[in-house]
Amino acid sequence: MTEDEARARFAGARVAVLGTIGPERAPHLVPVVFAMDGERIHLAVDSKPKRSEELARVSNLRRDPRCSLLVHGYDEDWTRLWWARADGRATVTDAAPGLERTFALLRDRYPQYGQGTRAIGPAMVVEILRWSSWSALG
Amino acid sequence: MTEDEARARFAGARVAVLGTIGPERAPHLVPVVFAMDGERIHLAVDSKPKRSEELARVSNLRRDPRCSLLVHGYDEDWTRLWWARADGRATVTDAAPGLERTFALLRDRYPQYGQGTRAIGPAMVVEILRWSSWSALG
Repeated sequence: MTEDEARARFAGARVAVLGTIGPERAPHLVPVVFAMDGERIHLAVDSKPKRSEELARVSNLRRDPRCSLLVHGYDEDWTRLWWARADGRATVTDAAPGLERTFALLRDRYPQYGQGTRAIGPAMVVEILRWSSWSALG
Repeated sequence: MTEDEARARFAGARVAVLGTIGPERAPHLVPVVFAMDGERIHLAVDSKPKRSEELARVSNLRRDPRCSLLVHGYDEDWTRLWWARADGRATVTDAAPGLERTFALLRDRYPQYGQGTRAIGPAMVVEILRWSSWSALG
């Protein structure tokens, strides 16, 4: 898979897994919805019900901005397996206008925003530094 | 979601995302097939085509055994979103009989082993230390 293919498959996915580094330097994973904007991936905390622990992703990224986002396709036909991964650094944004830009991108992509789920913030904007990918068919 | 529900949903999934810590202490993510055995999750390197980079998961776990495995369900109806996560410590096993135990569990679960894909090893056996979970409906 070329880098362009990895980027296109990633951009087309509806959900990714975000990996960050926790306070004791252990890995922390959570699924996220996202919107791409060139070589940036936008994420936001929204109004979906949360436990307080849920915001670990934000405190982790404030402490260490390095993160990894993975999209993958599973199929019982293992010749159809693939994944695409973006590694980068996140900036946590608490204030407008950065926040508004991320919210607008997410609203454009997910009609669920405005139908009961609100983007609240902070926003997390990941500058992609490296693409990796794999597919069973090469 | 109770811990029992989280465990059951995790155990029922066909694929998870494994998070480990890379050599420079950045997060590293890759999808994995797995088999559960009580409070252990078994993984193995298999013969699916790989780039050499792919084995980062193994060298990462030899260096730092802490890892996180995430399973999640995405749905355009966001009231149906959920995830379940197992955090633990992995032991990397290069030799029988540990290797054979993992291979047997994986073969039982995935008919793809024996149909062109072989488990090769090493095996990674994750001792689960903590369950976390979330669902939109609470």
